[in-house]
Amino acid sequence: MKDLGQIGVIGLGLLGGSVSLAVLRCFPGVRVVGYSHRRTTRAKARSLGVASEVVDDVGSAARGCDVVVLATPIFTFPQIFRAIGPHLRPGAVVTDVGSTKVLPGRWAAKLLPAGVDYVGSHPIAGSEQRGVEYARDDLFEKAVCILTAHKKTRGPAVRLLKSFWTRLGCRVELMTAAAHDRILAGVSHVPHVTAAALVNAVASEQLRFAGRGFMDTSRVASGPASIWTDVLLANSGNVARGIDRVISELTRLKNAVAEGDQRAVDRLLNRAVRKRKAMIEYKLRKKELMS
Amino acid sequence: MKDLGQIGVIGLGLLGGSVSLAVLRCFPGVRVVGYSHRRTTRAKARSLGVASEVVDDVGSAARGCDVVVLATPIFTFPQIFRAIGPHLRPGAVVTDVGSTKVLPGRWAAKLLPAGVDYVGSHPIAGSEQRGVEYARDDLFEKAVCILTAHKKTRGPAVRLLKSFWTRLGCRVELMTAAAHDRILAGVSHVPHVTAAALVNAVASEQLRFAGRGFMDTSRVASGPASIWTDVLLANSGNVARGIDRVISELTRLKNAVAEGDQRAVDRLLNRAVRKRKAMIEYKLRKKELMS
Repeated sequence: MKDLGQIGVIGLGLLGGSVSLAVLRCFPGVRVVGYSHRRTTRAKARSLGVASEVVDDVGSAARGCDVVVLATPIFTFPQIFRAIGPHLRPGAVVTDVGSTKVLPGRWAAKLLPAGVDYVGSHPIAGSEQRGVEYARDDLFEKAVCILTAHKKTRGPAVRLLKSFWTRLGCRVELMTAAAHDRILAGVSHVPHVTAAALVNAVASEQLRFAGRGFMDTSRVASGPASIWTDVLLANSGNVARGIDRVISELTRLKNAVAEGDQRAVDRLLNRAVRKRKAMIEYKLRKKELMS
Repeated sequence: MKDLGQIGVIGLGLLGGSVSLAVLRCFPGVRVVGYSHRRTTRAKARSLGVASEVVDDVGSAARGCDVVVLATPIFTFPQIFRAIGPHLRPGAVVTDVGSTKVLPGRWAAKLLPAGVDYVGSHPIAGSEQRGVEYARDDLFEKAVCILTAHKKTRGPAVRLLKSFWTRLGCRVELMTAAAHDRILAGVSHVPHVTAAALVNAVASEQLRFAGRGFMDTSRVASGPASIWTDVLLANSGNVARGIDRVISELTRLKNAVAEGDQRAVDRLLNRAVRKRKAMIEYKLRKKELMS
């Protein structure tokens, strides 16, 4: 990555701001040009010193950049791809940090100019917070970052992004966009829907008695609704099928409880205990979690 | 509470051990007699100094006590009520820290001797950990403790337990056992089932890609299956109805997603955001959470 000189970050929320701060920390000498479509966000980003420069038009955040990172809501990507196209230099790599990868890949193939490579990135990090004031230069440390590419994606573009995210602290895994969207439905999009459903299923005056368990189980439901609506709609097939799988597991547990079938309830709960234990052990081995 | 001299704690797991440690800290001079049916747990509790004395038979943990606290799995209560009955002094108050309250109340009315009062306690605190080695003397600080009583329960017994839990750091709320079991189904028992269903709905090799969101959403699913099986079966009617409510909320979200109905998805997610925000604000006001 000797030739990395300038990075553009479009969208300066929690994720975009954190990409920018992390690059400033991990790539000394690299310039980060940031852009947000909101004037107030640009002003906040400037006063927080989130980027080397915060520009007032999206084209200036793409011009002369080696890598351009989109960190805006998914359904803004087509418009941004169109807007930055004329400003991208040949050989530039465009990526994004969106939570679904099939649609962005399709849009990129159609809308980005020839000579520019698109590789999808999904650093699995974040929080229920939003806004540049929550941006952190260590948000991506110990996170998994999934890169999505297809057969036509050029090797150097993938390798460039692989070293980029590795340097920011991620463990990088490469897969197809379709595999990504299937997996993320199960571990992220459907759990978000479930957390919202759990909160909506309980009367407000009963929520007062929620303990730490409920607080954790429902935490993600406080995430920004507009962003999550986009994510769910951009992955609707996988999400709908994933919700059906959860409903089917809930129904099994409900039937076992209603029938007073102690062995069946115990077996289903123990299955979850064992699977979660294996998941945690895997993450400890991979150093994604500290013991 | 000038006359509190001795407390018995039956069951020395995370909760029983923590009751014992908290009493030793908050009631200087009060003796705590602990009992566990497992020899290894008794040895561990002795070496950790969890109680003033750890006894080898359940009767000795009740004899001469002003308050006896059961902290064992719910379905052991009938047997313990029978076993301690002959050892309880008149005026003693028996309570428990179980997660359901209707069945324990019914068993107590039938099995405890006249002259002894039963009041149900549910300090909403704990963790997915188990075992006396995780016991903490501050587990109940800032927790809500629900007391359940019925019309015949004598006032002094309720007042005694109210000051008992208040001294351990809880905010005490009084309600009927039926109301307790209905509410806890929504904020605790059904969320546990949902967390287990979420884990069971995802293939193990996909769980590797889980991020912090999934870790939190599924955390309670690592709780001890045998204890949770008892809780679910002891509250089966409310749990089954609560699961149905979650399934119905999941179905609404699924239909909105499958139909690409952006406004409906956004409205459902926003409803959860607002309800959860109100819950957190309430808890901040009540000092159950720190800002």
